[in-house]
Amino acid sequence: MKNSLLQNINSPSDLRKLDISQLPHLAQELRDFIIKIVSEHEGHLGASLGVVELTIALHYVFNTPKDLLVWDVGHQAYVHKILTERKDVFYTNRKLHGISGFPKRTESIYDTFGVGHSSTSISAVLGMALASKIKNEFKQHIAVIGDASIASGMAFEALNHAGDTETDILIVLNDNAMGIDPSVGALKHYLTEIKQQNKAAENNVFTALKFHYSGPINGHDIESLIAELELLKNKKGPKILHVITTKGKGLQLAEENQVVYHAPGKFDALTGKLYPKEENHLPMKFQDVFGETLLSLAQINVKIVGVTPAMPTGSSMKMFMDAFPERAFDVGIAEQHAVTLSAGMATQGMVVFCAIYSTFLQRAYDQVIHDVALQNLPVIFCLDRAGLVGEDGATHHGVFDLAYLNCIPNLIVFAPKDELALQNILYTASLGLSQPIAIRYPRGRGFLPHFSVNANDFAVVEIGKAICLKKGTNIAVLSTGVMANNVNLAIDSLAEKEKIAHYHFGFIKPVDEETLHHVFTTCTTVVTVEDGVIIGGFGSEISRFAHKNKYKVVVKNLGVPDLFVEHGTIAQLQQICDIDVTSIAEVLQEFL
Amino acid sequence: MKNSLLQNINSPSDLRKLDISQLPHLAQELRDFIIKIVSEHEGHLGASLGVVELTIALHYVFNTPKDLLVWDVGHQAYVHKILTERKDVFYTNRKLHGISGFPKRTESIYDTFGVGHSSTSISAVLGMALASKIKNEFKQHIAVIGDASIASGMAFEALNHAGDTETDILIVLNDNAMGIDPSVGALKHYLTEIKQQNKAAENNVFTALKFHYSGPINGHDIESLIAELELLKNKKGPKILHVITTKGKGLQLAEENQVVYHAPGKFDALTGKLYPKEENHLPMKFQDVFGETLLSLAQINVKIVGVTPAMPTGSSMKMFMDAFPERAFDVGIAEQHAVTLSAGMATQGMVVFCAIYSTFLQRAYDQVIHDVALQNLPVIFCLDRAGLVGEDGATHHGVFDLAYLNCIPNLIVFAPKDELALQNILYTASLGLSQPIAIRYPRGRGFLPHFSVNANDFAVVEIGKAICLKKGTNIAVLSTGVMANNVNLAIDSLAEKEKIAHYHFGFIKPVDEETLHHVFTTCTTVVTVEDGVIIGGFGSEISRFAHKNKYKVVVKNLGVPDLFVEHGTIAQLQQICDIDVTSIAEVLQEFL
Repeated sequence: MKNSLLQNINSPSDLRKLDISQLPHLAQELRDFIIKIVSEHEGHLGASLGVVELTIALHYVFNTPKDLLVWDVGHQAYVHKILTERKDVFYTNRKLHGISGFPKRTESIYDTFGVGHSSTSISAVLGMALASKIKNEFKQHIAVIGDASIASGMAFEALNHAGDTETDILIVLNDNAMGIDPSVGALKHYLTEIKQQNKAAENNVFTALKFHYSGPINGHDIESLIAELELLKNKKGPKILHVITTKGKGLQLAEENQVVYHAPGKFDALTGKLYPKEENHLPMKFQDVFGETLLSLAQINVKIVGVTPAMPTGSSMKMFMDAFPERAFDVGIAEQHAVTLSAGMATQGMVVFCAIYSTFLQRAYDQVIHDVALQNLPVIFCLDRAGLVGEDGATHHGVFDLAYLNCIPNLIVFAPKDELALQNILYTASLGLSQPIAIRYPRGRGFLPHFSVNANDFAVVEIGKAICLKKGTNIAVLSTGVMANNVNLAIDSLAEKEKIAHYHFGFIKPVDEETLHHVFTTCTTVVTVEDGVIIGGFGSEISRFAHKNKYKVVVKNLGVPDLFVEHGTIAQLQQICDIDVTSIAEVLQEFL
Repeated sequence: MKNSLLQNINSPSDLRKLDISQLPHLAQELRDFIIKIVSEHEGHLGASLGVVELTIALHYVFNTPKDLLVWDVGHQAYVHKILTERKDVFYTNRKLHGISGFPKRTESIYDTFGVGHSSTSISAVLGMALASKIKNEFKQHIAVIGDASIASGMAFEALNHAGDTETDILIVLNDNAMGIDPSVGALKHYLTEIKQQNKAAENNVFTALKFHYSGPINGHDIESLIAELELLKNKKGPKILHVITTKGKGLQLAEENQVVYHAPGKFDALTGKLYPKEENHLPMKFQDVFGETLLSLAQINVKIVGVTPAMPTGSSMKMFMDAFPERAFDVGIAEQHAVTLSAGMATQGMVVFCAIYSTFLQRAYDQVIHDVALQNLPVIFCLDRAGLVGEDGATHHGVFDLAYLNCIPNLIVFAPKDELALQNILYTASLGLSQPIAIRYPRGRGFLPHFSVNANDFAVVEIGKAICLKKGTNIAVLSTGVMANNVNLAIDSLAEKEKIAHYHFGFIKPVDEETLHHVFTTCTTVVTVEDGVIIGGFGSEISRFAHKNKYKVVVKNLGVPDLFVEHGTIAQLQQICDIDVTSIAEVLQEFL
């Protein structure tokens, strides 16, 4: 009897054959299914549990895939995926060659717009609606967006435009008061007031922007949802439906610990309890090295402040935030603002650590150039999740940063090879640089089993200096960032290792020209290795240096090729990009 | 008697010695002064004429430079500059080594934050206010922002954060219903309602965001302004003062033609009349080639749509917009939204021309990667003002685009050498590409005196094909974009010109590898020339190609060096970057 409904549902047309009275039961089956699969295979949990009823209602009321439904971010789209022909492959979620953790156009006709980064859905669906209008096609256009995502600038831009159009788009505001961390900002307080009063507040922001506002309604009451959606389906003009949901709904521990159960790893499907992790003697996470070092530095330097756009937990800035709340600023999903706010603070002599995931700094590229670098303000960018990030896939890899940052004047660009190097560059930056710096480091654990952050060990890093990790006679490998470790292992695996030198360029910019001259005058082949795109990256600059100085040495660049890398484990993806230990060793062997 | 007040005022402390009753007279003198200087030396006119009274009132009430005043964008900061120690050098505005057309920290202690791109001021001033709070320093923090700029996403992000702080910042909303073009969007309509009712509307957006809202007040009434600012100075918490002004105030023609008089060029100071331009037989502007070609294409292809973030006049998309208003979208200063809206339309089969200035596309970098290129949607980006833009200076040069676009998979990057090449690539793109394309072209006139846009002449460009402009035996010059013209002239100036080949790479990506192999096997020296940053640019990719293919040819890269280039004429700036005709000729001569 279990899954008796779900087993017969493969697409929304199957769903629409059910009676409304059966839908709560289906909701329970969907929750059980998601919990079972995610508990075994990992993934994002809380967001999807929160929208089970909403997703059922949307596909029940609207004629998908003809009607166009866009999910913002996509963490919450598991129910959608299961209901749209992907139930049987759901267990491959986020695995190499499996389905993506996010909606993706090439995966399904029901995925109308690929997502991953937040706050794009209103723009996308408005574009679709304007296109339908021009083509004189009648279809519905719906975006589902969370309260954390709608507070981001580009969502506002889209609302401001949409309110001034004659499209009939429907924005479903999925308000659970959470992003990955709790939502912040004035709009969040405003939405909280609405919820507390259980009616639209005075000074309705959405009404001011010429939207028809409807709500708030209980997002776990399928009948109410369907009734309201049916009403709105026939209403003209831009509409917003404010739906209140609970992140993690239906799994008590997930409801109680929403940050942890956003993506909890493996857990017991029945109790929801996380499996204890075997963490003894594992190296620290780079995130924690950042968090603990920042905390330690802030204890002795009152000018240190921290800024993060909605990533306090993920970046581990939370350690500092809990200790010094008055000096820490989680500004919400607002990368542009985060960077220029940092610039503003830097003009007043503050030492600003701005923690943003590498892939999200793309959202604030202009601000890095125009507000920070052009004014040469010494903001310290801490770019987490640089390089290949693994299961989050193409939308989240931090592989463009070296290319898009390296071309910016005044900016120092640094990639530590391990935890110690990260600690020490953070320390060095905190002492006051005369220019901005971007420090990029990967997701996950480092390489030093006995390392712990200790203020007594803090040491100053010489800006612009490369390090010789190993001498050699013929080939010089120039690595940057954590690729140093793959290179070390690759060299060790080779018989003629004495012929191979290894230099680590923590500083991509300014590059150590003295060391480069030494390399190019002593070796016959130079191999560069980076975990970022080759075009415009570290290796490209080494190529340029060689030509500029008329060296006729062979230069080979290893790095991420010119394509979007999909999801999989980091090890699998390094293989695909030929920057795993074996691939590097093979290249070196060829040149020996 | 003329200028009797202004001649004694060099700084705000001088200003504060005047009686309030004298200030309207000072305002008149300031207007006369600005009109006189700008009529002779050119510059931005309308915005500054609109804020004469407001600027006087701000410096009169607040204790600048101790109190921190940030101007958004900065077109309107001429009065500020004149009142803050730069009256005597105001005639050097926007000239090489003269003062900048925008506030700039290195220029004056009164310029607290460098601007140029819009909507940064609230973030910056909030950063300053939070810093003052942490440092326990009492000072005032004021941002002046226009109604077009406050509708941009990052301004909303800053408001959303600021409303949730206990800072006492004051946002002065300078509402003239104009950006460069008329303001658009739902918020603009909302503000119009407020003005029409002459009181705060219901559903007050700013109140919802936890700001104290004050206004609307007449921004040309100095006494009212001073009285209101004095009140707000002592009020706690985030505040917004809504001030109504008229762009171009005091010069009738400028009030009546606000778009034209935003930056009118030279004109008669007494009458305001523009001098007739001698335009006979001058080549067309690239902007007009774009505008006319788009219009022509749209007449035969109903799937063509146009999107621009607040640049219909500047980009000349206005021609298309006037003819096909239902297919043209000026979305306001909302680059992020513009790009993802374009992506949304492209999913529905529309042929989308998205016109953005090169420097402003930096604002939508993530959207280009994440929403367009990753999904391989064939959006056609038309990047106006690419390369060195001249007098607007460091904030506006479109010199990073080749570097930040070249590293994006799936994207075609093209830079036409002249008007004809621009016309034909627009035509080619309109026929439907299987991937996105960025077409970047400079500000101003082209090179072909007899060229005009004619649909009968439209020709398909072969994607990825370079052109041999001149054969030669020893040196190969590889140019991209309009640098072809400087290279042509440089080669012509040399005695041994038969030794020099010249290839034009309209396509930076995909690069023409066949032609490159030919070049590298037939020449001994390769010189690349581009009007963008060398790091990560066209020449860097040529260097990388050479190493990848083990060619041992000398490669020399000419382009914009690794520094922020200031303002001046384009010719002057090309000299500074060594990409003018003479500099190129000198380099070639060296290699001969």
